[in-house]
Amino acid sequence: MAGRAAKAVPHLMTLADLSPSQINGIVSHAHYLKQISLPWLSPQQRGAKVSKLRMPSQSLFSKTIALLFSKRSTRTRLSAETSAVLLGGKALFLGKDDIQLGVNESARDTARVIGGMCQGIFARVGEHSEIEELAQHSPVPVLNALSSLWHPTQVLADLLTLHEHASSFSHLKDNTPNHGLKHLPQLPSLRPLTIAYVGDSANVLHDMLVTYPRLGHTLRVASPDDPKYRPPQPVWDRVLKLGCDTGIWWGPDPREAVRGADVVVTDTWISMGQEAEKEERVKAFQGYQVTEALCREGGANDQWKFLHCLPRKEHEVDDEVCNNLPPFHIHSPRSSQVFYGPRSLVFPESDNRKWTIMAVFDLLFGKWDLSAADSALRQKSG
Amino acid sequence: MAGRAAKAVPHLMTLADLSPSQINGIVSHAHYLKQISLPWLSPQQRGAKVSKLRMPSQSLFSKTIALLFSKRSTRTRLSAETSAVLLGGKALFLGKDDIQLGVNESARDTARVIGGMCQGIFARVGEHSEIEELAQHSPVPVLNALSSLWHPTQVLADLLTLHEHASSFSHLKDNTPNHGLKHLPQLPSLRPLTIAYVGDSANVLHDMLVTYPRLGHTLRVASPDDPKYRPPQPVWDRVLKLGCDTGIWWGPDPREAVRGADVVVTDTWISMGQEAEKEERVKAFQGYQVTEALCREGGANDQWKFLHCLPRKEHEVDDEVCNNLPPFHIHSPRSSQVFYGPRSLVFPESDNRKWTIMAVFDLLFGKWDLSAADSALRQKSG
Amino acid sequence: MAGRAAKAVPHLMTLADLSPSQINGIVSHAHYLKQISLPWLSPQQRGAKVSKLRMPSQSLFSKTIALLFSKRSTRTRLSAETSAVLLGGKALFLGKDDIQLGVNESARDTARVIGGMCQGIFARVGEHSEIEELAQHSPVPVLNALSSLWHPTQVLADLLTLHEHASSFSHLKDNTPNHGLKHLPQLPSLRPLTIAYVGDSANVLHDMLVTYPRLGHTLRVASPDDPKYRPPQPVWDRVLKLGCDTGIWWGPDPREAVRGADVVVTDTWISMGQEAEKEERVKAFQGYQVTEALCREGGANDQWKFLHCLPRKEHEVDDEVCNNLPPFHIHSPRSSQVFYGPRSLVFPESDNRKWTIMAVFDLLFGKWDLSAADSALRQKSG
Repeated sequence: MAGRAAKAVPHLMTLADLSPSQINGIVSHAHYLKQISLPWLSPQQRGAKVSKLRMPSQSLFSKTIALLFSKRSTRTRLSAETSAVLLGGKALFLGKDDIQLGVNESARDTARVIGGMCQGIFARVGEHSEIEELAQHSPVPVLNALSSLWHPTQVLADLLTLHEHASSFSHLKDNTPNHGLKHLPQLPSLRPLTIAYVGDSANVLHDMLVTYPRLGHTLRVASPDDPKYRPPQPVWDRVLKLGCDTGIWWGPDPREAVRGADVVVTDTWISMGQEAEKEERVKAFQGYQVTEALCREGGANDQWKFLHCLPRKEHEVDDEVCNNLPPFHIHSPRSSQVFYGPRSLVFPESDNRKWTIMAVFDLLFGKWDLSAADSALRQKSG
Repeated sequence: MAGRAAKAVPHLMTLADLSPSQINGIVSHAHYLKQISLPWLSPQQRGAKVSKLRMPSQSLFSKTIALLFSKRSTRTRLSAETSAVLLGGKALFLGKDDIQLGVNESARDTARVIGGMCQGIFARVGEHSEIEELAQHSPVPVLNALSSLWHPTQVLADLLTLHEHASSFSHLKDNTPNHGLKHLPQLPSLRPLTIAYVGDSANVLHDMLVTYPRLGHTLRVASPDDPKYRPPQPVWDRVLKLGCDTGIWWGPDPREAVRGADVVVTDTWISMGQEAEKEERVKAFQGYQVTEALCREGGANDQWKFLHCLPRKEHEVDDEVCNNLPPFHIHSPRSSQVFYGPRSLVFPESDNRKWTIMAVFDLLFGKWDLSAADSALRQKSG
Repeated sequence: MAGRAAKAVPHLMTLADLSPSQINGIVSHAHYLKQISLPWLSPQQRGAKVSKLRMPSQSLFSKTIALLFSKRSTRTRLSAETSAVLLGGKALFLGKDDIQLGVNESARDTARVIGGMCQGIFARVGEHSEIEELAQHSPVPVLNALSSLWHPTQVLADLLTLHEHASSFSHLKDNTPNHGLKHLPQLPSLRPLTIAYVGDSANVLHDMLVTYPRLGHTLRVASPDDPKYRPPQPVWDRVLKLGCDTGIWWGPDPREAVRGADVVVTDTWISMGQEAEKEERVKAFQGYQVTEALCREGGANDQWKFLHCLPRKEHEVDDEVCNNLPPFHIHSPRSSQVFYGPRSLVFPESDNRKWTIMAVFDLLFGKWDLSAADSALRQKSG
């Protein structure tokens, strides 16, 4: 590529690849991009002066990002497609009917060919080894959109959402410096939180394990007492290597897990491809449904908030439509309000998939520099 | 959204939702957008001064419109995708393999999630209740691309086509005011027409029923004498509420229906999903094929024109390739020319899907104001 | 279309439709577009002055090109989608689940409808007659993305790749004039080459047959001695009409074919849809695998280079992973390096699909003039 010294191609497979300051930088950058992008997305009003609006970085101008998705996706895909537009570029969705990695062509050749035409690969694969192979051979950055092991962009969205709701948590002491960009509110800082995860050990939790303890938060995890519901060795190796294990409590009792929790997180117990195990899983997770009763009995913080990466199934969280669930489901009169109730941050969380993915697209695909966030914030044009 | 007072989210489910002046405004706006857009779409010529061309409204700049299509579509989809480009935005097609409403996620959650990332939803669903549910929960405007009950964008295209061919109809008295935009011809006005519809009572006809009588035109409809080929109650309720019934003649005889007709409209008798009923339907509609002979015998206006929303099947309209149709098909030597002949406006009608959808996208998704058309016409920059 | 006199719609079905100077013009234009586009595609660097970059022609601004692909495609599709972005336009992919030519709607009606909404049709069909029918009825240019008979855009990419590697071939005498655009290297000229094709007579070879001899190169083809592996009559008719036959040697022995070869080309023996014939084909092509041994024994030029349109199968070319192929596969210790080795130009060739398709999109869809390349090169703004 003209005018540029060869440098190593950056990739992002998991938040374990990033330092805490890089993670915070990306979340701040997402907040910044959200503030300046929203005015562009509101209805056009006659006489409104577009020239006064601040333009997001056009770091993807004329560029195309390949979305290599072997599984269906709503939030991740839409985030990518809409973000690319805001950054001046294009997302090119390639589903399982468009490209099947390794079927007509090896992952190696596919990575080289796509990387020769596109300026980034955002890949949702099955086995994590598939995305590692793509990254090994791609001449352009590869970003993990979801793999069997990791889901980094989800946890970035959760972080942005928690920061935005910092004032919801008691004992908040907002130290947000008020210098900085004119007219743009800084992202509120977050006191150390206790974050409970109640459910299966899957990709979202794995990225939580390597991230939250390093940012000063405590993780309390309940999963059934069976190795299949615990993290696989490669994940635990990263946890240990980063010293995150000291910030993690783990046990089989959801009540214990939510003790003192500021935030309760869960995910579906029955992911795509696990439908055959449904009965076994519903049984293994008996008592794990997130309800008002569970959190009251377990002693969660009164102000606890709820996160879920969506889509949800009826089993793992209480809402107003699941009153005829099986008998293990005990709830108080108010318990039927978790999912659609005031504790739920699931939709702001979903919205923030867009802004955090936009931040990573800008930094990784647009600038090849995941540390560029901080200084970007200090610049007018992002 | 910054800088904007909360206002109700506008949606468009059927033309019954709009006033006659709103409908006329949208059609005029489509005509305007067509005039200013076409020069941008012609082959680039050396030395041509792009700066002299008028730019269409960029009301979708940086925005994404989700196309939620549970059924295949050519015209509607292409209209949406190409219009969004002209308005500076992006259409994101999501077919049945991408999202299945209510299968992995409820329509409620889907509407909220998509509406949090995109700036409009253009939905082609099965049951009309599905799109109503989307509109109920979406934070952004929802536009009906086709439902079991209604097809509003088709009738807008038909209206634009009829206006453009106003001079084809005898007794035309063009009162088009000649003031207005420099160099841009105004949309010709239309004398009261007699419009015959010969065929099944389906979504296209339903929007005709609630629209044409209010614009001063007379509707004459022939459909078989069986409730299944008549409009369902919710449609007829809207017809009555708008007082349109007095402008509608209805009977089983296609010959009677085309009496005095300036325009003859039909649609396929066998829509997607009705293939099983094919034999029964072909029998029920015996004699309904639109031919020269039918219209001559029925006493249509000599200058009658033909409309069809496409795609067509061989049964419902005569063309040069269907000479070996079943015996109920009687035709004169010239009868083989309706579909591809000089009476046919089907391809201009198809082209106009684009311009009318562009107008609705601009007003509904870009400006949240379906009444903004008139004044838009008086402004230079649309 | 406003402001333009009606002119015949240009189409491109095969390179046989073009003169040698048009072909050279397109390849030069592709080289030019590549030079000016690459800087836009590199990572954004702080402080870099975008204003100093030269902009590619925006001849597709606001335009949409329909990609009508009845078969899956990676290179051709990605080339089209990424090129359209660089030219300011949009590519709209329509796969077999979106439109099935002739199933719901005739090819004739489809061509007219799509051509009324889009500004070009890039079609990958089955039978070549299908694309001819599209071209016959389309009001906008149709470009052949691959048919049963021809594959013009592949051979353009091969030509650009050979020019770029002109110095690899011995006896090169570079007469490239050094005047021209400031700072932009001219495309090196190419001495007359001997190009061997070893394999099935399919669409890529067919466009080679009508192109290379007219550009001064010699073609040597080996295919099994059976009419089914020889070109169909319509292809051979074009070869004869263009007088290309005198520049072509043909026989069944791959060793003879590679004699004196500067370039060895092959393609899969088992294309999509031919899986049933796999066993028969593997047998017919025994000894046709391109290996170091074959080329040494046949007497290829020491510097021979390898081309393949991809995706490849293990049968037709040697690489490091196919050591346990059937016994007909004889190789020297170094033989395992053709595909991924230094002789292989397959990935630059793949990259050049993009730039040559961009050139044709600009000229055919953007300007309706396939001869506009030369003068474009002399202009600053392309």
